[in-house]
Amino acid sequence: MSLDRLLDDFAAGQISREELKRELLRQSFIETGCAKIDQLREVRTGGPEVVYCAGKTPDQVASIFDHLNRHNGRVLGTKADQAHFEAVREVAEARFDPVSGLLSIGGAPENPVGKVAVVSAGTSDLSVAEEAAGTAEFLGSRVDRHFDCGVAGIHRLFSVMDELNGASVVVAVAGMEGALPSVVGGLARPPIVAVPTSVGYGANFQGLAALLTMMNSCAPGIGVVNIDNGFGAGYLAHKINMLAFGELDG
Amino acid sequence: MSLDRLLDDFAAGQISREELKRELLRQSFIETGCAKIDQLREVRTGGPEVVYCAGKTPDQVASIFDHLNRHNGRVLGTKADQAHFEAVREVAEARFDPVSGLLSIGGAPENPVGKVAVVSAGTSDLSVAEEAAGTAEFLGSRVDRHFDCGVAGIHRLFSVMDELNGASVVVAVAGMEGALPSVVGGLARPPIVAVPTSVGYGANFQGLAALLTMMNSCAPGIGVVNIDNGFGAGYLAHKINMLAFGELDG
Amino acid sequence: MSLDRLLDDFAAGQISREELKRELLRQSFIETGCAKIDQLREVRTGGPEVVYCAGKTPDQVASIFDHLNRHNGRVLGTKADQAHFEAVREVAEARFDPVSGLLSIGGAPENPVGKVAVVSAGTSDLSVAEEAAGTAEFLGSRVDRHFDCGVAGIHRLFSVMDELNGASVVVAVAGMEGALPSVVGGLARPPIVAVPTSVGYGANFQGLAALLTMMNSCAPGIGVVNIDNGFGAGYLAHKINMLAFGELDG
Amino acid sequence: MSLDRLLDDFAAGQISREELKRELLRQSFIETGCAKIDQLREVRTGGPEVVYCAGKTPDQVASIFDHLNRHNGRVLGTKADQAHFEAVREVAEARFDPVSGLLSIGGAPENPVGKVAVVSAGTSDLSVAEEAAGTAEFLGSRVDRHFDCGVAGIHRLFSVMDELNGASVVVAVAGMEGALPSVVGGLARPPIVAVPTSVGYGANFQGLAALLTMMNSCAPGIGVVNIDNGFGAGYLAHKINMLAFGELDG
Amino acid sequence: MSLDRLLDDFAAGQISREELKRELLRQSFIETGCAKIDQLREVRTGGPEVVYCAGKTPDQVASIFDHLNRHNGRVLGTKADQAHFEAVREVAEARFDPVSGLLSIGGAPENPVGKVAVVSAGTSDLSVAEEAAGTAEFLGSRVDRHFDCGVAGIHRLFSVMDELNGASVVVAVAGMEGALPSVVGGLARPPIVAVPTSVGYGANFQGLAALLTMMNSCAPGIGVVNIDNGFGAGYLAHKINMLAFGELDG
Amino acid sequence: MSLDRLLDDFAAGQISREELKRELLRQSFIETGCAKIDQLREVRTGGPEVVYCAGKTPDQVASIFDHLNRHNGRVLGTKADQAHFEAVREVAEARFDPVSGLLSIGGAPENPVGKVAVVSAGTSDLSVAEEAAGTAEFLGSRVDRHFDCGVAGIHRLFSVMDELNGASVVVAVAGMEGALPSVVGGLARPPIVAVPTSVGYGANFQGLAALLTMMNSCAPGIGVVNIDNGFGAGYLAHKINMLAFGELDG
Amino acid sequence: MSLDRLLDDFAAGQISREELKRELLRQSFIETGCAKIDQLREVRTGGPEVVYCAGKTPDQVASIFDHLNRHNGRVLGTKADQAHFEAVREVAEARFDPVSGLLSIGGAPENPVGKVAVVSAGTSDLSVAEEAAGTAEFLGSRVDRHFDCGVAGIHRLFSVMDELNGASVVVAVAGMEGALPSVVGGLARPPIVAVPTSVGYGANFQGLAALLTMMNSCAPGIGVVNIDNGFGAGYLAHKINMLAFGELDG
Amino acid sequence: MSLDRLLDDFAAGQISREELKRELLRQSFIETGCAKIDQLREVRTGGPEVVYCAGKTPDQVASIFDHLNRHNGRVLGTKADQAHFEAVREVAEARFDPVSGLLSIGGAPENPVGKVAVVSAGTSDLSVAEEAAGTAEFLGSRVDRHFDCGVAGIHRLFSVMDELNGASVVVAVAGMEGALPSVVGGLARPPIVAVPTSVGYGANFQGLAALLTMMNSCAPGIGVVNIDNGFGAGYLAHKINMLAFGELDG
Repeated sequence: MSLDRLLDDFAAGQISREELKRELLRQSFIETGCAKIDQLREVRTGGPEVVYCAGKTPDQVASIFDHLNRHNGRVLGTKADQAHFEAVREVAEARFDPVSGLLSIGGAPENPVGKVAVVSAGTSDLSVAEEAAGTAEFLGSRVDRHFDCGVAGIHRLFSVMDELNGASVVVAVAGMEGALPSVVGGLARPPIVAVPTSVGYGANFQGLAALLTMMNSCAPGIGVVNIDNGFGAGYLAHKINMLAFGELDG
Repeated sequence: MSLDRLLDDFAAGQISREELKRELLRQSFIETGCAKIDQLREVRTGGPEVVYCAGKTPDQVASIFDHLNRHNGRVLGTKADQAHFEAVREVAEARFDPVSGLLSIGGAPENPVGKVAVVSAGTSDLSVAEEAAGTAEFLGSRVDRHFDCGVAGIHRLFSVMDELNGASVVVAVAGMEGALPSVVGGLARPPIVAVPTSVGYGANFQGLAALLTMMNSCAPGIGVVNIDNGFGAGYLAHKINMLAFGELDG
Repeated sequence: MSLDRLLDDFAAGQISREELKRELLRQSFIETGCAKIDQLREVRTGGPEVVYCAGKTPDQVASIFDHLNRHNGRVLGTKADQAHFEAVREVAEARFDPVSGLLSIGGAPENPVGKVAVVSAGTSDLSVAEEAAGTAEFLGSRVDRHFDCGVAGIHRLFSVMDELNGASVVVAVAGMEGALPSVVGGLARPPIVAVPTSVGYGANFQGLAALLTMMNSCAPGIGVVNIDNGFGAGYLAHKINMLAFGELDG
Repeated sequence: MSLDRLLDDFAAGQISREELKRELLRQSFIETGCAKIDQLREVRTGGPEVVYCAGKTPDQVASIFDHLNRHNGRVLGTKADQAHFEAVREVAEARFDPVSGLLSIGGAPENPVGKVAVVSAGTSDLSVAEEAAGTAEFLGSRVDRHFDCGVAGIHRLFSVMDELNGASVVVAVAGMEGALPSVVGGLARPPIVAVPTSVGYGANFQGLAALLTMMNSCAPGIGVVNIDNGFGAGYLAHKINMLAFGELDG
Repeated sequence: MSLDRLLDDFAAGQISREELKRELLRQSFIETGCAKIDQLREVRTGGPEVVYCAGKTPDQVASIFDHLNRHNGRVLGTKADQAHFEAVREVAEARFDPVSGLLSIGGAPENPVGKVAVVSAGTSDLSVAEEAAGTAEFLGSRVDRHFDCGVAGIHRLFSVMDELNGASVVVAVAGMEGALPSVVGGLARPPIVAVPTSVGYGANFQGLAALLTMMNSCAPGIGVVNIDNGFGAGYLAHKINMLAFGELDG
Repeated sequence: MSLDRLLDDFAAGQISREELKRELLRQSFIETGCAKIDQLREVRTGGPEVVYCAGKTPDQVASIFDHLNRHNGRVLGTKADQAHFEAVREVAEARFDPVSGLLSIGGAPENPVGKVAVVSAGTSDLSVAEEAAGTAEFLGSRVDRHFDCGVAGIHRLFSVMDELNGASVVVAVAGMEGALPSVVGGLARPPIVAVPTSVGYGANFQGLAALLTMMNSCAPGIGVVNIDNGFGAGYLAHKINMLAFGELDG
Repeated sequence: MSLDRLLDDFAAGQISREELKRELLRQSFIETGCAKIDQLREVRTGGPEVVYCAGKTPDQVASIFDHLNRHNGRVLGTKADQAHFEAVREVAEARFDPVSGLLSIGGAPENPVGKVAVVSAGTSDLSVAEEAAGTAEFLGSRVDRHFDCGVAGIHRLFSVMDELNGASVVVAVAGMEGALPSVVGGLARPPIVAVPTSVGYGANFQGLAALLTMMNSCAPGIGVVNIDNGFGAGYLAHKINMLAFGELDG
Repeated sequence: MSLDRLLDDFAAGQISREELKRELLRQSFIETGCAKIDQLREVRTGGPEVVYCAGKTPDQVASIFDHLNRHNGRVLGTKADQAHFEAVREVAEARFDPVSGLLSIGGAPENPVGKVAVVSAGTSDLSVAEEAAGTAEFLGSRVDRHFDCGVAGIHRLFSVMDELNGASVVVAVAGMEGALPSVVGGLARPPIVAVPTSVGYGANFQGLAALLTMMNSCAPGIGVVNIDNGFGAGYLAHKINMLAFGELDG
């Protein structure tokens, strides 16, 4: 029985509170052999279980997508590659964006709401910035992209400043020294989600330099996610964006 | 001329757009000898310039408070100590909370809005958690405190879970291994601001262990601030909280 | 002369204590050209010498397996690959599990004793968790597996909590932020062996984040082994499990 | 109502299962203003809540000791100093060992069981080794101490080897290069709990060198706790020791 | 015989080239018991030997100052404290600036040349910025100071941008995330000497964060010196400044 | 309209100051889909935008080169490979040096000025040293190369010391322990740009050892760039070199 | 003119001291295009220039070998591979040991002197241990090999202890936790050269764990070389070994 | 019975080999309550047990000195302070050098042999250099001191090069960037013991920079000891020095 059906029945008084709880518990995860799929995360936390594809075999990914698809009708996977895509399209119609590594069933909602602005420093940060943008879109946010606005040519950033200030939340993506969120943070009103990327070399230490920079920003109002974690940034930005629409309080 | 007066004059057509801009630029910072005080940060970013007191002499802090007080009527300082307090109270009526190290003129608004929930892991994290809570209150948010809810006794966390889910945003403060935000993130709907603290010893490395834990959380929807940076967490949480009230869009 | 034969002879009074000691010393390791095989480790420490296959050529591994097989009849190798397997099966009937990288002659005993519970956080931790489980089984412990129980969906963990409490010892395997052992440690009675894995990216630093988390756990009763060291965890868990059966005291 | 009383009533059928559960939940922690004291940890995990005193004020420690004492009659605190002791003795008869920093009400049981062997490398490791020994004793284990047995004079270690092999579990404490557990691990039958200490200088990096050594030990059967974490080692060793007496299975 | 005298004699043909070289070698350093003072560094490298006072006793510093003063008439010491000053003023008229820790005999030349611009991020970076400025002045450069221009209030930086572009070289001093040189580097024409400071806390790691930021700057034209090394920055900036006046080629 | 044309028109009074500024802003960067090309960097900072090719696809690089070539007639790319070269030569005549990874359109000016001396420690540092030399040449400096002069055979360094002292600025490139700049700094008059390389193994940690060495040099007058950042060194050296010719002040 | 011829001529009074020095300087290195070969290192330091092959092309290596061979008749290269060997054998008769990566012309002297004992912990350390042994042999020392004597089976080490004590110097090679030199240092009379290897995984961090262990050894009389630096250990051991024969004093 | 007496008796045939061994074992260490003193280390390893005083109480140190003094008549302690000295002089006539922290009973032998040269980089390295020199002297080596010879003024080093080459072994002590051993290693014939010191600041990281430099030296023939470990260097140098006199082979 689908979750919606279950909730309708409860609302209609056809099943008791106890029956609902028992069924919810029974449905709360599915054993697929290799995974316990967390089906009620959306009920619990307001966001669906998203599949981290890296390090899983194409067969494992396809099996998990299949289960989640049957239950929710929409699935999102991150850090996927072409082989994961091939395996998933065997079980359902799916889309794959090789730039961001996002693999999905169901796509983004037709009427996105609010505004998440994604701003990135350089061309090389593109894949992480797209992962953030695509994630927020899949979850239902409207997203504006402003790429290649690094602080070495700060007028590029100024040219988009008004648009950043018109968003509910800004995702700022940068590698190398990662100074972009600090500068945005000194100029913008919305809360900022900062994403360090592993772009760079030498004393960059695979993104550690940018991570530390963002952690130590002298401008307040910045929360940082893991290096290259575009998904996490998009997910958090979506949650914040939804606040402006009362969606989390419903 | 105060900022409000200036804006009123402009709205009333008594000064031109150009005159307003020139005056804004002139007022944008004040040279105090040791500092260029950023008076328009609130206009620009929606939050006031907050004074980081550690590493400044009591005289420097008092001078900066005096300037900001004359201009804004309300001032907040962080990581302050008793000596800073003594110096500031010479120039204005001020309050000092030795637990959080917050030093303020003007105090929190009478009618706080929304809800920021601050949850912390252990008694030793108290000062950082209070710094977060006090900052958000000073800025105008209503704050609930849930202290000593570490994951080693996870039922303590469960007992406050409903209240966390009733907030717009959760600030999760933890030292030692810093697992609290991960567990909260798997259970809560609001976006989470995670604060690692330097509480611990040995391989904790002054908070690095907790910082890395929070960065790598398997639960999404978490933004991390610097180790012991309660102020940054409270500031960001306030910004997010305001979104639910349309304050940032106004 | 085999070790058992030697000990029987001594028990029967056919060789003296001095003769036994001399023979033991002579047999204590075998020069194979590339290795001094430690044949008496089992006598000395209660566990057999186990062959770390990574970084050894297939020929070296096969030669060492051959020697140990002739002496003990049972051999275990870790971090092996298909090529090691091919070489060893030339000299003896062997089994190879590509998931865990365990390569063995003789297999697990028919009547395992006690109970070791292996709990892991995610699908990607599977190979390390299997290495721990397979090692403990080879050594003679009964093993229960509870995989994919990460703290982001903590109800999955709660669903197996009773079974964990029914074991003599729990092996907790987790990558990313590695919070699983802390949560288990706050809920479970048995001693816990924690295994950080290198699963994750960015500020995970190949498992360092999980390692530090486990080191700093606010829940006591946890001993940590090296990153990805499923073998070490299974070995230690087996030793602890045997205590409950007096095997180490015999 | 004390926990024992409650359980007796339930066993005698004077309160129902539901009443018991409700009362347990009510009693599960006590709000003391600064702390939520976890009173049921012993029921849940087989070990009492132990108070980490460092970073708490003497008043906070005394208040927590007072609460726990009223409930359990026995309390243990770690990393305490003279000021904590002074404050606690105001509320109850307490003992304090300045070498180990252990502060306790109630002391060790009269009839300790099993055997935990604590072996340490040098005189400077004394306080951590004593913290491990004292913790295990407080919890009810019999403890043998073998101090100053570092590998630089390996005959000192050999002279105690038989006694180590006679224990259920060995706690090995070492600073500087931390090689002691590796050598013990190659010679001893019991499981080993390794404790790196911060003793050393230069490239020791406050115990990191010893920690890494123990993590990478070529001898299996070793679980590692945090740097200077004598308490954690004693606690884990006690749990393992109890296995040999069926205490955890009861 | 003083160096100038020696060179005059050689120019006048009163001593031969061989005699000059022999005398130079003889004079090249002076044994003072605790130090071999490098008297010819100025001849060789264009800059005097500067005394690093931290870690030396007041007596050692006074003795070295005395020797250098007799030979050169001008001496500069760095990272000095009041005690060093007291000892040196016993042997010569000296000046001490407690903010920068610079201790000198002889002071700055009357007619400084060129222009070195020192720009710093925050009030807390003052002492390092002053060390850079004071060093360059002592060596003969004209220095402009622009303090408290951090990127969190970037208009403060813009207000001094023309003056920075009017200098031969810019010294950019910043702690916390250290983004200032990146932003300056994207806007300014002169070469930039970047100085990370240890101002900050938590994941700043005593200046490491700022150091990595500056190392990885996406803006080229930046050379970095050690954390808190205001002296090194001022020295290098002076050398570069002198180039614009042909002083190094003479 | 080209930049030169624009400036000529302004100088000739054919366009107003306002028209010039508007056009400059319009031209200041070009949207190419994947990048905002910073066309006015040369006007602003005295150096052209240089294309960091690593991590960009050949198509992206070719597109950016094409745009910059149309605007400036000269383009420089760094860390390029053969595939980048193939793509760029489709759109313009280009040169590629596989040793340094420099890819350029337009080549070095015919009449280089001043003197930059590039000195390197070992044969393995060749590619980074060539990147520094080639960059400075492309920008218009005359460059002398002195390779394989490491301090293990210090007479090799002495043999080129006079030539180093004849330059305006020295670029010192070294891997392994990176001691070369310290020794040069004790002997040479010009300012020094130090480049650590990732040459080495073991405790070299991909150039970290050399980086720390250069940061801590006991000889002053040294500015350090990122590990393997030959481009950054060449760019900075060129800027310093131009000072001796008044080019930056024009 | 060969070096020997030159020295004979000087000894015979056919050339003056000045002529000898001038010729030595002229011969001290050879420009080969990619390298300045240090031909007089043997005269200066008592050991030949050894070619570090990793990171050099086969052609570069062959060219350097050719030059050194013409001058000295004997050449040693380290970290070489098959391709380097193929290129060198084109120019001279050469030997290559794929285990140690040593590539040589001329081979070891017929009558080695003294005794260097090389002891290693595990089979996986073989290549580094062989590099040390082969280097010392090439330089003229007699070498005894004692491989696979790790501390996990310490009787293997004891069985060779007498032989170690009979050597002039012991090279101790170990990966993983690297405890071997500490144990040897507590038992052996000769000075010890310790070589950490990168054998291990997880918290081994490519040999860092073993390096720190050896640095912090509680047994004195140990000097450490770089991770995997078998060559450096063999070279240093040879120098020490020669002392026992007065070779360095001649 | 003293050790000498015991050996005389054995040589005279008055006690058997078995009796000697039994007595040696009995005497091999003394339980003093806080320590097992290793009395036979000198017999076993050719060097006495040396007391590491830091972290021990004055009473502990005095007790250990007293025991060793009764047995050997000569004792050496390192990293001692004035309080240790006061306690030890209560039990025996002792000497204390506050610069090096060496505390001794018995002093250096009257007729030192061989030559150990100690060369250090700066005045601030004095205490570590003196610790190395004093240790080697106490053990019986003749020691030459050459302090303040850092590479920033390399002529100071050249002035002592002949004396370094006249020694059996060179101890090179340096902080900051630690380049001294590399330069000495390129010029000197004797084996080199390198000692990094913690002198420096910022990116020096308490001696880590110097340690890495020495580890990665491009000059071979260098063994490194721990940061600030002057004792370890002096001890190793003495062992090497003795080789030249056949002392270790006797």
